Amino acid sequence: RMASADGSKLWGGRFVGDTDPIMEKFNASIAYDKRMWDADIRGSKAYAKALEKAKLVTAEEKDNILHGMDQIHDEWAKGVFEVKPGDEDIHTANERRLKELIGEPAGKLHTGRSRNDQVVTDMRLWLRDAISILKGNALQLITTMVERAAVEIDVLFPGYTHMQRAQPIRWSHWILSHAVALSRDVEQLQEINRRVNVLPLGSGAIAGTPFNIDREMLRQELAFDDISINSMDATGQRDFIAEFLFWASLCLTHLSKMAEDLMLYSTKEFSFLTLSDAYSTGSSLMPQKKNADSLELIRSKAGRVFGRCAGFLMTLKGLPSTYNKDLQEDKEAMFDCFDTVHAVLQVTTGVVSTLKINPSVMEAALSPDMLATDLAYYLVRKGVPFRDAHGISGKAVFLAESKSIPLNQLTVEDLRTASPLFSSDVSAVWDYSSSVEQYSAPGGTAKSSVAAQVEHMRTWLKKQVQ
Amino acid sequence: RMASADGSKLWGGRFVGDTDPIMEKFNASIAYDKRMWDADIRGSKAYAKALEKAKLVTAEEKDNILHGMDQIHDEWAKGVFEVKPGDEDIHTANERRLKELIGEPAGKLHTGRSRNDQVVTDMRLWLRDAISILKGNALQLITTMVERAAVEIDVLFPGYTHMQRAQPIRWSHWILSHAVALSRDVEQLQEINRRVNVLPLGSGAIAGTPFNIDREMLRQELAFDDISINSMDATGQRDFIAEFLFWASLCLTHLSKMAEDLMLYSTKEFSFLTLSDAYSTGSSLMPQKKNADSLELIRSKAGRVFGRCAGFLMTLKGLPSTYNKDLQEDKEAMFDCFDTVHAVLQVTTGVVSTLKINPSVMEAALSPDMLATDLAYYLVRKGVPFRDAHGISGKAVFLAESKSIPLNQLTVEDLRTASPLFSSDVSAVWDYSSSVEQYSAPGGTAKSSVAAQVEHMRTWLKKQVQ
Amino acid sequence: RMASADGSKLWGGRFVGDTDPIMEKFNASIAYDKRMWDADIRGSKAYAKALEKAKLVTAEEKDNILHGMDQIHDEWAKGVFEVKPGDEDIHTANERRLKELIGEPAGKLHTGRSRNDQVVTDMRLWLRDAISILKGNALQLITTMVERAAVEIDVLFPGYTHMQRAQPIRWSHWILSHAVALSRDVEQLQEINRRVNVLPLGSGAIAGTPFNIDREMLRQELAFDDISINSMDATGQRDFIAEFLFWASLCLTHLSKMAEDLMLYSTKEFSFLTLSDAYSTGSSLMPQKKNADSLELIRSKAGRVFGRCAGFLMTLKGLPSTYNKDLQEDKEAMFDCFDTVHAVLQVTTGVVSTLKINPSVMEAALSPDMLATDLAYYLVRKGVPFRDAHGISGKAVFLAESKSIPLNQLTVEDLRTASPLFSSDVSAVWDYSSSVEQYSAPGGTAKSSVAAQVEHMRTWLKKQVQ
Amino acid sequence: RMASADGSKLWGGRFVGDTDPIMEKFNASIAYDKRMWDADIRGSKAYAKALEKAKLVTAEEKDNILHGMDQIHDEWAKGVFEVKPGDEDIHTANERRLKELIGEPAGKLHTGRSRNDQVVTDMRLWLRDAISILKGNALQLITTMVERAAVEIDVLFPGYTHMQRAQPIRWSHWILSHAVALSRDVEQLQEINRRVNVLPLGSGAIAGTPFNIDREMLRQELAFDDISINSMDATGQRDFIAEFLFWASLCLTHLSKMAEDLMLYSTKEFSFLTLSDAYSTGSSLMPQKKNADSLELIRSKAGRVFGRCAGFLMTLKGLPSTYNKDLQEDKEAMFDCFDTVHAVLQVTTGVVSTLKINPSVMEAALSPDMLATDLAYYLVRKGVPFRDAHGISGKAVFLAESKSIPLNQLTVEDLRTASPLFSSDVSAVWDYSSSVEQYSAPGGTAKSSVAAQVEHMRTWLKKQVQ
Repeated sequence: RMASADGSKLWGGRFVGDTDPIMEKFNASIAYDKRMWDADIRGSKAYAKALEKAKLVTAEEKDNILHGMDQIHDEWAKGVFEVKPGDEDIHTANERRLKELIGEPAGKLHTGRSRNDQVVTDMRLWLRDAISILKGNALQLITTMVERAAVEIDVLFPGYTHMQRAQPIRWSHWILSHAVALSRDVEQLQEINRRVNVLPLGSGAIAGTPFNIDREMLRQELAFDDISINSMDATGQRDFIAEFLFWASLCLTHLSKMAEDLMLYSTKEFSFLTLSDAYSTGSSLMPQKKNADSLELIRSKAGRVFGRCAGFLMTLKGLPSTYNKDLQEDKEAMFDCFDTVHAVLQVTTGVVSTLKINPSVMEAALSPDMLATDLAYYLVRKGVPFRDAHGISGKAVFLAESKSIPLNQLTVEDLRTASPLFSSDVSAVWDYSSSVEQYSAPGGTAKSSVAAQVEHMRTWLKKQVQ
Repeated sequence: RMASADGSKLWGGRFVGDTDPIMEKFNASIAYDKRMWDADIRGSKAYAKALEKAKLVTAEEKDNILHGMDQIHDEWAKGVFEVKPGDEDIHTANERRLKELIGEPAGKLHTGRSRNDQVVTDMRLWLRDAISILKGNALQLITTMVERAAVEIDVLFPGYTHMQRAQPIRWSHWILSHAVALSRDVEQLQEINRRVNVLPLGSGAIAGTPFNIDREMLRQELAFDDISINSMDATGQRDFIAEFLFWASLCLTHLSKMAEDLMLYSTKEFSFLTLSDAYSTGSSLMPQKKNADSLELIRSKAGRVFGRCAGFLMTLKGLPSTYNKDLQEDKEAMFDCFDTVHAVLQVTTGVVSTLKINPSVMEAALSPDMLATDLAYYLVRKGVPFRDAHGISGKAVFLAESKSIPLNQLTVEDLRTASPLFSSDVSAVWDYSSSVEQYSAPGGTAKSSVAAQVEHMRTWLKKQVQ
Repeated sequence: RMASADGSKLWGGRFVGDTDPIMEKFNASIAYDKRMWDADIRGSKAYAKALEKAKLVTAEEKDNILHGMDQIHDEWAKGVFEVKPGDEDIHTANERRLKELIGEPAGKLHTGRSRNDQVVTDMRLWLRDAISILKGNALQLITTMVERAAVEIDVLFPGYTHMQRAQPIRWSHWILSHAVALSRDVEQLQEINRRVNVLPLGSGAIAGTPFNIDREMLRQELAFDDISINSMDATGQRDFIAEFLFWASLCLTHLSKMAEDLMLYSTKEFSFLTLSDAYSTGSSLMPQKKNADSLELIRSKAGRVFGRCAGFLMTLKGLPSTYNKDLQEDKEAMFDCFDTVHAVLQVTTGVVSTLKINPSVMEAALSPDMLATDLAYYLVRKGVPFRDAHGISGKAVFLAESKSIPLNQLTVEDLRTASPLFSSDVSAVWDYSSSVEQYSAPGGTAKSSVAAQVEHMRTWLKKQVQ
Repeated sequence: RMASADGSKLWGGRFVGDTDPIMEKFNASIAYDKRMWDADIRGSKAYAKALEKAKLVTAEEKDNILHGMDQIHDEWAKGVFEVKPGDEDIHTANERRLKELIGEPAGKLHTGRSRNDQVVTDMRLWLRDAISILKGNALQLITTMVERAAVEIDVLFPGYTHMQRAQPIRWSHWILSHAVALSRDVEQLQEINRRVNVLPLGSGAIAGTPFNIDREMLRQELAFDDISINSMDATGQRDFIAEFLFWASLCLTHLSKMAEDLMLYSTKEFSFLTLSDAYSTGSSLMPQKKNADSLELIRSKAGRVFGRCAGFLMTLKGLPSTYNKDLQEDKEAMFDCFDTVHAVLQVTTGVVSTLKINPSVMEAALSPDMLATDLAYYLVRKGVPFRDAHGISGKAVFLAESKSIPLNQLTVEDLRTASPLFSSDVSAVWDYSSSVEQYSAPGGTAKSSVAAQVEHMRTWLKKQVQ
C-alpha cells in the first residue's frame, strides 16, 4: 500500500512524495503471497456474488467479474500470469489484471471490502487446504508405522530409559509409541482447523461491512463453518497462524525424538537397523561413510519451525489492536512451516517404510541385567515388599559385577547371600520372552497388549478418513 | 534418584561412590515439586487400592496405607510436613514419611510402579486442577468485559488501525474484540484439558505394568477420562505441558495486546480513560507520576511465559524416546506459567472493572477525516465504482489539508472540483452516529450488531459453567 | 551428498539404491547457498595455491584451476552460470563446472579438503563481507541521528517513562539515546567479526589435513586474522552464526524500541512529528489514512530475526560433536538476518532523515505537573530532606488536581498549606528551559551535556571509519 | 512503587485509592531482588559520598548513612535482616531500615537519584561479580579438560561425523575440541563484562542528575570502567542482561553438545567410558540401572537458559524508550541463568574429572573401513586425482561389504579390480597410529598437533588469570 507521486496506485490521490525503492521492496509481499492466488480468486468470486445480492453490482457486472477471475485463474494455473512492478501483493495483482480484462466493473469489486478482511480470508482458505494435505501426510505415516508394527510384533530388543538399557520390549511397542504421539498431532490439527475455518470476510478494515453484504451467503459460498463474531478481532488476530506454527513445532519435536532414536539405532555400535540408501548420503572425503542425512534433517527441522513460531509470537507481543503492518510476517512463516512439515512427513514415511531391522542383533543386545526388575518381582511374589526386593536385587547385580559375570550366572548360593528366599526356580526369571509377557495390562509390551494397540490405531485411522 | 555409599536411599544397594553436593542439589526437585503433594497422595491412595485388588497388599495393609496417606495429607495441609535432607522429590518424601508412620507395608506401595509413571500422573492431576482454576479466572474476566460492553454500548470513539485513527466505532465493540479472543483461549484450554486428563499410571518405567494392576479401576478412582495407549509414550511424553505453556503464551499475547491499547488510551495525549489508583503506582522521584504499572506487567508477562514455552520445547527437541532426566524441566515451567496467568487474569479483571472512561474526550477525538470512507460511499451510492470513489474522496482529503480546514468544512463547490456528483445532501455524511449504524452486518459496530455480540457472549458464558 | 544408483555423483561408487526425489530436494541447498558463489571461488583458488605448494598439483594445474575459477566467477557475475540438476550445493556446482572447463585437474582440487571445512570457510568469507556492509549501514544511520541531534538541540518536549509524561527533555537527547544503543551494536558486531574472521580450511572432515597443506599460507591468501585451533571444533561449530543471529535480534530490538516511540509520536494524539510520504502508505479502504508502515515493519522484524536465532539455537541444542547435517539450517538463517537488518537499517535511515518534527506541538505538550520534581528540589535547596520534599510536592499536585488547575497556578498560600517553606521565589520553578539546564552532569539533558554527547559520538564515528 | 491510601509509602502523598493485594504481590520484587542487597548498599554508600561532595548532606549525615548502611550490611550477612510487608523491593527495604536506624538523614539519600538509575546500578554491580565467578568456574573446567587431554594423549578412538564412525582420532583431540569452544565463551564473557561495567548512577529517572553530583567520583568509588553516555539510554536499556542471557545459552549449548557425546559414549553399546557414581543415579524400579542423570541435566539446561533469553527478548521487543515496568522481568532471568550456569559448570567439571575411559574398548572400536580415506590417499600419492581415488576406494569398500570381510582383508588382487595402481605396499595403510600422524598441520589430530593445542590452551589459561 505504497504512496506515490502520481496517484496512479489504487489508493492514491493523497500522497505527493516519492517512495524509497528499498522501502517499496521492504513493503511488498507479492514475492511470497502470490502462493495464495487461488484462494484470492475464490474469495473475490464469492464477494462478487454478495455484491450482486446487495445490488452493488448488476448481474452482468457480476458475470464479468466471475469470467475475468476465471481467466486469471487460468493464467496462474498455466504459469503465464505476469506480475507487474506495481503489484505489491496478490490482491493488487489480481485486481489490476481484472481491470485490464474487464474494465470498469473491476473497480466495484472492492466495495465495502478492505485489504484487511480480504487478506485474512485468503489465508484461511489457503491454510484450510494446507491442513488437509498435512493431515493426509500424517495419516500415511501413521498407517505405515502401524502396519509395520503389526508385521514385526515378535521382535524383541532393549527398551532404553536415560539412553541406558532398561527392560526388554517389543520393537513394535517402540514403533507404536511414536505413532500414538502422531495421532495426537492429527487430533490437535483438526481442532485448529475448526478455528481456521471461520469466515472473516465482511469485517472491512475494522468496523464491519455496510451495504447489506450477506455474510451468511459468503460463508456458504466459501464453505466456512462459521462467521467471525467481531470485526476488529477478525481483521487483527492471527491466532490461527500462531496455533498452526506451534502445532508444526510440536509435531516436528515428535519426529526429532523418533529421528534421534533411529540415529542411535543405526550407529555401528547399536547396529539395530540400516537405513535405505535412498535416505542416506555419502561423504565428499570419506568413501566408506553412509550418513543418515534424512534423520539429521528431520531432527533439525523442529528447530526451524519453532523458530518461525517464536519469531511470530514475538512479533505479535505488545502489538496494539486491529491490523498493523507487523502482521505481514504471518505469511512467510505459514508457508515455510507448511513446506517443511509437508516434506518431513513424507521423508519420514519413506525412511520408516524402507529401513531394514536386524532382529538378531536386536535380540542379542538383551542382557540378563535387564531382568533385575524381574528378579525383584520374583521376591515380591514370595511376599517381600518391593522396596526390599529392589535392594536385594541391587545387591545381586553388584555381586555379579564384582565377579564379572552376567547376572543370570550367579548361583543360587550366590543369590542366597542377598536373600534366603531364592531357590532353584529362580532360573525361570532369565527368559526375555516370558518377561515381556508380564506386561499385559493396556499399554504394555506383552504381545496381546501390543496387538490391542495395533487394533486401536487401525480403528482410529479408519475414523479419520471417514 | 541419587546414588549413595551406604545404600540407605530407597533404590540403593548398588552404588559405592559418594555424591557431589552440587550434583545432589542440581538433581533434587523437592524445592518445587512439593507443590504436587496432594496429587501425589491421591495417586498413591488409588494405587494402594489397585494393589489390593491385585492381591499384592492385604486389605489391612491397604487401609494402613490409606490412613497413613491421610495423615501425611493433614501434615501438608497444616504446613507441618517436614522435608528431610534425603527427600529428593515429593514422591520420595511422601513414601519416606509413610514408612515412618506405618512401617513395612509402605515398602509395598511402589510395587509395579515406577517414578516414571508416578510423576506424570501427579502432574496430570495437578494441571487438571490448575486448568479448572484458570478457566474460572478467564470466565470472570470475560464476564466483566461483556457486562461492561453492555452498559457502555452508546459510547463512540476512534477505531485505530496502524495506530492511526481509522473509523468511528463503539467503545463496546473494542471491549468485545478482546473478549472474543479470550473466549477462544477458553475453548482451546478445554481441548488441552482433554489431552491432560488421561491416566498414565500403570505404565511402569517403560514396559507397562505386570501383576494384574487394573488400570480401568485406577482411571475411575482418579476420575480420568481415558487411559494412555502406550506405556513408552505415556512415560516419555510431555506434550500436554508443551501445549499448556503455549496456551499460556497465546493467552497472554492477547492480554499484551489489550494492555498496549489501554496504555495508549491512558496517556495524557489520548486521555480516553483513567486507571484506578489500585492498579497504578507512583514514582520514587517524580511526585506527579501515576504509572500504569499493572498494564506494563500484563504486557511483559507474555514474554515470560513464552520464554518458558521456548525453553521447554528446546529441551524436548532431539531427546531420545522415553524418560530422560531432561524432562525434569517440565515442572518449574508449568508452575510458573500457571502462577503468572493466574495473577495476570485476576489483575486484568481488576483493571477492566475499575477503569473509568472519559466519554466526552473519546467522542471529541472523532474527526471528520475519519468519515472519508463514508464520503466515498456517498459516491458509491450514486453509482461511482468504489475505486474511483476512493480516489475522489482522497482528493477531497488533500484539498482540505491544503486549505487547513476539516474535511467537513469543504463547500459543495470545493467537493465538485473532485467530482460533479457531490450535492448538498453530502452534509448527511458528517454524522458519526449514523456512520457507525451502517455496520449492521454480523460482527459490525452498529448498535444492533454490538448488542448481538453481547448476547452471543452471554449465551456462550452460560454454556461454559454448565 | 546424495547417493545414486549409477555412481555418477562425485562421492559415488558406494551406493546401489535410488533416491527419493523429495529427499533429494530436502537435502539440496543450492537454491540458497549459491549466494556464496564468490566466497566458494575465493576459497578454492587459495586452496589450489596451497595444493601447489604441497606438490599435490603442478604449477600448470594450479594455473588451470585458477583460470577455470576466474571463468566461473565471470559466469556467476554475469548471471549466466547454469545450475544443473545434480548440483546439490554451490561447492558441487562450482567443481562440476570446473571439470567441464579444465578437465582432470579439477579432480585434484578437493585433495585433503572436505565439504565440512569448505562450507564453513565459505560462510566465514561471506559473513565477513556482510558484516562490513552492515557496519556501514549502521554508521550511516548513527551519523544521520547525531547530526540531526546537533541541529535540533534547542527543541524541548516531554520525556516519558511508563508512557506517561515525566520530565522536560531535549528532543536531541531522545535521538542520542537511540544512537548510543546502536553504537553498542557496532562495537559488538566488531567483536563478533573477530570470531568470524578465523580460517577453518585445512580441518578436513574432522581430523585435520594431511599432505603438508600450509594453513598459514591459506590464512594470508584469504586475509583471515587467525587459524582455527582444533579441527573438530572448526568443522562442527557454528557459534559465529549463532552470535550473528543474536546480534541481529538485539540490534532490531533497539530499532523496534525507536519505532515504537516514533509511532506514538506520529499519532494524531501526539502529533509530534510527521513521517515523509516516502515511508508511509495509504489504505485500500480509507482515503484519509496515512499509515506509518515503515515503522511497523521495522518493529516487526525484531521478531523475525529473533525467530531465526531461536530456531538455530534449538537446532544446535543437544547435537553431538562435529558436522551433522542439522547444521545446514545455518545458511538460510544467516542470509535472512543479513537481508533483513540490511533493509531495516537503510529504511530507518530514510525515516529518520526525512521525518519532520513539529516543535511547537512538542513544546506545547510540556505541562507544569512535569515540574513537580523541580518543586521538590526547590524545597531540597531549602534543606528539606528529599523524601519529605517529594511528599510535599505530591500534596501540591493533589491540591492542584482537586482544584482542577495546573500546578503552576497554585498560589503561594495554596503551597504553604503543604509546607511553610514556599515563598514567592517559587515562581522561578515554572520554567521548562531552566529546568532542563539543571541536568548538566555527563549524560544529562542540559544543552552543554547534550552537546557533549554529540561530540562524543562524532569522535566515536570518526574512529570507526579509520 | 504501589500507591496507598495513607501516604505512608515513601513516594506517597498522591494516591487516595486502595491497592489490590494480588496487584501488590504481582508488583513486588523483594522476593528475588533481595539477592542484590550487597550491591544496593555499596551503591548507596557511594552515593552518600557524592551527596556530601555536592553539599546535599553534611559530613556527619554522610557518616551516619555509611554507618547505618554498614549495620544493614551486617544484618543481611547474618541473615537477620527482616523484610517487612511494605518493602516492595530491596531499595525500599534498605532505605526503610536506614530510616529506622539513623532517622532523618535517611530521607536525604535519594536526593537526585531515582529508582530507575539505582536499580540498574545494583544489577550491574551484582552481575559484574557473578561474571567473575562464572569465569572462574569456566577456567577450572577448561583446565581440567586440558590437563586430562595432556595425560591421555595416546588414546585413539573413532571420530564420528553424522554419528557414524569417520576417522581415527585422539581422545584428547575430542576433549580439546570442547575446551576450545569454552575458551571462546570466556572471551565473549569478558567482552560482555566491559559493557556491564559502566556506571548508570547519576542518570536519574530519565533526564540526568541535577545538583552537581560528581559521576566520575561515583565511577571510581564503585570501580566501574566507564560512565554511561546518555541518561535515557542508561535507565531504559537492559542490553547487558540480554547479552548475558544469550551468552549463557550459547555456553550451555556447548555443554549440551559435550553431554550428548558423553551420553553416547557411556551407553552399553559404546562403552567408551564410565561415569563416576557421584554423577550417576539409580532407578526406583530397575535395580541394575545406572543413569547418567548429570549429563541429562547438563543437556537440558541449554533449553532452560535459552528460554529465559527468549522470554526477555520478547519482553523487550516493541517496548517504548526509557524505563517501563516490563523491565522488571530482567532480574529473575539474570539470577536463574547465573545459578544454572554456575551449577552446570561445576557439575561438568566434576563429571569430566572423574569419568573413567576404557581405552581398550575405544581402540577396539576402530575399524579398517575408517581408513578408506587413507586408501584413497594412497592412490593420490601415486598421482590419482582425489576424486577418482575417492571413487576407487568406494568400490573397494563395496567389494569388502559384498564379501562380508573387513576392508583390510581384501587381497591386492581384489583391490586391483578397482585400480591397477594398488600393490603390496598398500598394507602400510592399515595402521591407525600412522593414520592419525598424517594430520600434523595445526589443529590436526597428530600427536604433535594435539600437544601443540594443549600448549596453546595452557598459555591461554595463564593469560586469563593474570
